[in-house]
Order: sequence, then C-alpha cells, then structure tokens
Amino acid sequence: MTAWINNRFVPYEEALLPVSDLSIQRGYALFDFLRSVNSIPLFLPGHLDRFFGSADGLHLTVPYTRDQLGAVVQELIQRNGIDEAGIRLMLTGGSSPDTYHPTTPNLVITCLPVRTATNEDFEKGLRLITYEHQRELPHIKSINYLTGVWLQPLLRQQQADDVLYHSKGLVTELPRSNVFIVSKEGSLCTPAAGILHGITRKKVLELAGGLLPVEERAVALEEIYNSSEMFITSTTRRLLPVREVDGRLIGNGKPGSVTRELYRRFRELEEGLRAGGPDR
Amino acid sequence: MTAWINNRFVPYEEALLPVSDLSIQRGYALFDFLRSVNSIPLFLPGHLDRFFGSADGLHLTVPYTRDQLGAVVQELIQRNGIDEAGIRLMLTGGSSPDTYHPTTPNLVITCLPVRTATNEDFEKGLRLITYEHQRELPHIKSINYLTGVWLQPLLRQQQADDVLYHSKGLVTELPRSNVFIVSKEGSLCTPAAGILHGITRKKVLELAGGLLPVEERAVALEEIYNSSEMFITSTTRRLLPVREVDGRLIGNGKPGSVTRELYRRFRELEEGLRAGGPDR
Repeated sequence: MTAWINNRFVPYEEALLPVSDLSIQRGYALFDFLRSVNSIPLFLPGHLDRFFGSADGLHLTVPYTRDQLGAVVQELIQRNGIDEAGIRLMLTGGSSPDTYHPTTPNLVITCLPVRTATNEDFEKGLRLITYEHQRELPHIKSINYLTGVWLQPLLRQQQADDVLYHSKGLVTELPRSNVFIVSKEGSLCTPAAGILHGITRKKVLELAGGLLPVEERAVALEEIYNSSEMFITSTTRRLLPVREVDGRLIGNGKPGSVTRELYRRFRELEEGLRAGGPDR
Repeated sequence: MTAWINNRFVPYEEALLPVSDLSIQRGYALFDFLRSVNSIPLFLPGHLDRFFGSADGLHLTVPYTRDQLGAVVQELIQRNGIDEAGIRLMLTGGSSPDTYHPTTPNLVITCLPVRTATNEDFEKGLRLITYEHQRELPHIKSINYLTGVWLQPLLRQQQADDVLYHSKGLVTELPRSNVFIVSKEGSLCTPAAGILHGITRKKVLELAGGLLPVEERAVALEEIYNSSEMFITSTTRRLLPVREVDGRLIGNGKPGSVTRELYRRFRELEEGLRAGGPDR
C-alpha cells in the first residue's frame, strides 16, 4: 500500500512519525475518514469540509488547499488500486520541542482496504449498552477515543457490539457512530448537541425528507428505550439497526420499516455515486 | 541524544512510530515523566509504580519488569551524559490493523535536557484562569491533553500562565500540575478526587507533616479565591506559588510562609538525593 506524508508518496510501512509529535505526546491531532466505491471517494466534499473545520477547531492550519488534498486522495486510490478503500486524512500538532505547544503540523493520508457492514449485519442488528460520558470538544474529529477504546473489555464482558454515550439524561452518540430513533410519535429524531456531525448522519437526514417528520433535538435516555425503531450511522457501517439497548428490546428486535427504507435509499444513493452520478 | 524503543537504543531522531499506532490513531497511550539530578533519577520508584498502574488502568501490559525499566532509565542517563534530564516512558496501544483495538504495545523511553522552574519563577508566582472541565480517566496518566493544549490561545489572550480545571463547583487540577491551598483555617488542602496523583504532590504531603494540618478533600472553587496561600506542584515546576486566579489576588500576591517552607523542604529533599541520599 502507498501512503502520503507531508507531500511525499511512501510505502505505508514507511509512514512514520517521530515520538516528539504532539499526537504521540499529548493526543493532539485530528482526522477524517471516508471510503471509496468503485475508486470514487464517497462524499469527499463533506469530509474535506469537516477536516478543515476540525483543523480550525484545534487552531491548526492545513498546509494545502481542498483541491490539493482532493487530488492526493484520488491519486492514492489509483496508485493503490483498491476499489473499496478506507481513506484517512490525519493532521497532527507537529513535532514539539517542549512536548506541549503545537508547531508545524504533520499531514498524513493513508488508503487501505476497508470492510463495510453487510446486509447480514443489517438484518442481525446491534446489541448496545449505555455509558455516561461526554466526549471533549465533540464537534471536532480529534483522535481522542480514550474512553471508547478503554471500554472494550466491558463490551466483551457484556457481549455488546458497541456503547451508546449519554450525559445528564440525554443520549449523544456512539464512539464512532451517530444514533437515530423513530419516536413513539413517528418522527425521526437524532441528538443535535454534544456530538460529532457525521457525514452519513447528514445524508440520512436528507434522505428522510418526505418519508416522516425529522427532528434534530435533545433525546432523553428514557425515550430511546421506548422508541419504535433505532439505528446508528457511520461511514463503514452505513445504517445498522439497534435490536437491544441495556438488555431491552427495541421494537420487536427486527429492523423497522423506516430504518429499512432509509437503508434502501442510502444504498441507492451509494450505487448512483458508484456508477458515476453526482455527489449530492 | 539516545532514546530506547522496544528494547533498542537508537538516536532520538530515529525513535519513530508507524501511523497505525493507536497513540496516533486514537490517542490511546500512557506515559510517565521524571527527571534526573546529578544523573540520579528522582523518585524513580514512585514513577515506575504509577507507570505500571496507568498501563493496568488502560488494560495494557508492560512487556518488561520494573527492574528492567529502571536499568534502561539509568543507562539512558549515562549514555546521554545530561545531569539534569527529563525522562519520559511511553506505552502505546500498539500498531492496530483495525485502527481501534489495542495490540502489542510499543514502549519508548526518551531522555532529553529539561528546564525546571527557578527561584525567580518561585518569587514571581503564577497567574491562573479557571476552566470547567473534568479529564477523562483522571487517575491514569494517559496522553489525553486535548483540552489543555486546545486552551493555549485562550491563555495567551488572557495573559495567564496556566489553567485550573474545576467541575461541579470543585477544583481538581491543572493540565500538568496538582494544586494546593492553605485554607482560612490554616490547613493544607488539596483535592483528593478527579485528579492524577502527582509524585511531587505526594512528596509535599509527606513534607508537610508537623508543619500544619493536612487535608486531602474536596475543595470548592469559591474556597480557593479566599485561600491565604495557593501553590501548584509538578515534576518540572516543583512548587510554584499562585499569585492570582481569575484576576483575584491570592493572599497578598507574594509566596506565603507555608509555601516557602514546603519549597525549602522540597529543595532540601532534592539536594539530599542529588548527593546520593536514599529516595525517601
């Protein structure tokens, strides 16, 4: 595999950072992650927007333009010859002599094979547990996943697929996914605050137009237990139904009709882009 | 400078980690930091205890014994020939194929010149601002300093030297230091919960014996504004008086008598170790 680091294409194994880099010293870095279908980077404009936004948020400057980075992404996909790839753009606080103050950022882009959720995963659905936690600077896609990674032994112990964060009685998100419910009243609801604004989340909100009322608003933990449908969204998982939260069944434990229709629309959107259609 | 990475001594510039390492991917890593005086590593047993404790806390295994790491630290100090060095031990989640699950940790030890606070710094004291924040997994010395580094432009704007975190009305710590006050009632008080247990903090608590009552307990934000003395502790700063918090003067803005006496005792302890005395 070929990667790109500070304007050089290198073998992936040679994409290295010095231990003085602020990502390693202080976890100070940000990234974005997208995937390609049929060698086409999916939702690239949205991912680039968020990447530059995260850099601004962490007071770091991306030393390239959007067009330059977009061209590097395209070339990486071509050079690696993987139709379905996961592309990661990373910007760090740079190599810091005093190990605390940001300097010139390091910029790395990698392109590796990616596994996405299957139709079987969709039919099976997810088993979640909840955990009280609010991510720091949640609107910024920083590399801070300390709590998420730390919770993995608990997930294994509880035989859960993933964890849903909540804080002050409100649900927010999963470590790497957004969450939606279909409320008892028949609206599609998703938390609006304290979250990372996912690209798939945004597409799903657009795709829901005309199907049912959509509400971006505070969602209470109690409300999700009683929702008629629930699903999560992420770049690699698209939409995945949640069948169980904290041992309580959601709906009848099967993918609901709204979830199924939104999933169908999302796959259709993706297939359209795969065939070279415009990136809506 | 020479560093040590996964059992090899290498030039510092060659201490590199692959971008697949979980420190870079997810900020999942821990460290400890000590310094040497006269080539003697200061409070090494306490730092090794905490390093192994942090690894346990993050479900990672240090692939060496305490004695082995202690010997590496000693050899690094000798090889680098710096009497007054900062020694950093880092353990990461390892190179992770799926960029999320820990694998075999990478272990790096660096040894670089270090600047410590001077007597002039002590006389001048610090100007702090406060910020509402609770560090994640605070008892573990993880590399997560996202909020601390992110706050730097605000510190510059406010002409503050550092930031004191508080949460739910209680003060906790600074990003890299512990905090103490001398209360109106004449006790030495320091927060007990939601903090990293500093090695210098522990030594100061020991040194305060017989001088005044000591209380490890919850300290309200309101209480610190009205404290008669306030100081912070850290490995590189030892004890530094706080002269001002959020624009309010602490005491008369000069180092107080308790702070001064504890500083004297700490320097004496350090000089004793420098001369080859036992590490109390």
